[in-house]
Amino acid sequence: MSKLLVFGHLNPDTDTICSSIVAADLINKLDLGYEAEPVRLGKVNKETEYVLNYLNMEAQREISSVGEDDLLWLVDHNEAGQSVEGREKATVVGVIDHHRIKDFETITPLYYIAKPYGCTATILFELYNQNKVEISKEMATLMLSAIISDTLLLKSPTCTQKDIDAFKALEEIAGIDAATYGLDMLKAGTDISTLSAQEVINLDAKLFEEKGKKIVVAQVNTADIDDVFSRKDEISFAIEKEISDKGLDLYMFVITDIINTNSKVMVLGNDKEVVEKAFDKKLDEDDSMLLEGVVSRKKQIAPPILANL
Amino acid sequence: MSKLLVFGHLNPDTDTICSSIVAADLINKLDLGYEAEPVRLGKVNKETEYVLNYLNMEAQREISSVGEDDLLWLVDHNEAGQSVEGREKATVVGVIDHHRIKDFETITPLYYIAKPYGCTATILFELYNQNKVEISKEMATLMLSAIISDTLLLKSPTCTQKDIDAFKALEEIAGIDAATYGLDMLKAGTDISTLSAQEVINLDAKLFEEKGKKIVVAQVNTADIDDVFSRKDEISFAIEKEISDKGLDLYMFVITDIINTNSKVMVLGNDKEVVEKAFDKKLDEDDSMLLEGVVSRKKQIAPPILANL
Repeated sequence: MSKLLVFGHLNPDTDTICSSIVAADLINKLDLGYEAEPVRLGKVNKETEYVLNYLNMEAQREISSVGEDDLLWLVDHNEAGQSVEGREKATVVGVIDHHRIKDFETITPLYYIAKPYGCTATILFELYNQNKVEISKEMATLMLSAIISDTLLLKSPTCTQKDIDAFKALEEIAGIDAATYGLDMLKAGTDISTLSAQEVINLDAKLFEEKGKKIVVAQVNTADIDDVFSRKDEISFAIEKEISDKGLDLYMFVITDIINTNSKVMVLGNDKEVVEKAFDKKLDEDDSMLLEGVVSRKKQIAPPILANL
Repeated sequence: MSKLLVFGHLNPDTDTICSSIVAADLINKLDLGYEAEPVRLGKVNKETEYVLNYLNMEAQREISSVGEDDLLWLVDHNEAGQSVEGREKATVVGVIDHHRIKDFETITPLYYIAKPYGCTATILFELYNQNKVEISKEMATLMLSAIISDTLLLKSPTCTQKDIDAFKALEEIAGIDAATYGLDMLKAGTDISTLSAQEVINLDAKLFEEKGKKIVVAQVNTADIDDVFSRKDEISFAIEKEISDKGLDLYMFVITDIINTNSKVMVLGNDKEVVEKAFDKKLDEDDSMLLEGVVSRKKQIAPPILANL
């Protein structure tokens, strides 16, 4: 059987780590002719660590690049800038994702299952059911954790009825009180006290390339925006370095209050006015603004930014 | 409910016409919030006419372009060069396809269901079952016809076990002797006697854009290669006109014997030697060659051509 590498995006979050483990489990249980191994493209964050510790599970092997003999299965992303180095040389056999499609092409036909849901794991949950494959307690916990993370405990505007349905069914299979577990898990992810400013901005940073512009939208969850914003100076310094190192046109650092579901954004780079146009609001003197009710990069931040370039 | 246009590729074939009608039926029966209408991007060919006549069914409405308010659902294609004019202004809500992915991007997340099967209709058959939607006799006949067409009655190398499974199940639901019906249907498609050379080469022509090159691979089915090849001079003339009108680098006209599953190809354009490299075989003096066992553009022709550019 051919070896298949299953992985999510760079700067892995809980959906990416959990969904790659779960997708590999499902692929191995289906008769697709592959031996799937979950891998990852970076360090596991503290929120995901909480999940793996809860399950007494080791994180999967980390890889940094792939070659022409490698067979790949992507989860939770498709854009080249968010994926593994060398992907263009390898063969993508399948994709399971919930994002827009961009900078993705293949030479041969493939499996590509995308749905506009709040979480990749919700699509995986459907695939288990459609293929009548039993879901273990462990896999249910991983999928439930991914949904909690991506939908902020079902409070994000990206959350769909399908995510809610999957959440309820998985809560039962996992035998977990999801409200309590979920809040503890989300809070574990907000602890950035031991991280450098550079680590903080790279916890969950995504690169978008559109109309010749390079934009990064990075996000960090918190229970207290002021607590993160107190590190504003060192964070700005780290962002300026990223902008200069990577030739970025715009960098948005989104500090998201998971309790009150608001975000404060710090904006740097030459194309700052794009953000003002996108949200029809002036930046404060310190280049920040509060976006009330905004918590989703995918649904509330990236589309207006990309549309206003 | 929002209106949704469901359609397949330019120069529609039987899979494109049937799968767009079937996909619209399925979308309307699911709770997706759309009112789906199947449309088409060109004239119905004689093979597909046979299917629609058998069902006493009118072909769907033809459209030539779309605008920014239109919501689209693509079947049986995704590449911009094979799709509707104005697509970049409209919103693609979903795709059901069995081809490689190329020149396709969106601003927002979408449904994208692709599988490496021989026919789009086989994916649709699975979707009916996964969503527990009953398949009418009419829809079964359309899906069965699409599978017969795309797999040449299960003889094409693109045919997978999933296509065979769907074929058998649909044959039963449709209440048709698929072997007899299928051969009559395929033969109806080979009647090109009333068509001009320009119509013949455009019956099933696909444009590929890769590495700055523009290549068309057109295909026609026949029960007698010599019969089609006797029109070689007027066909060459029509092809030369296409090359000059559209600035093509290469044009392959593939005459496929559906009984013996061979193809004779006529090759024109500046990049003729790409075909010789791709198949490791010299063209005859009349710029043609016989490719034994080759019947599939998608699996046997496009990949080696694109790899040798």
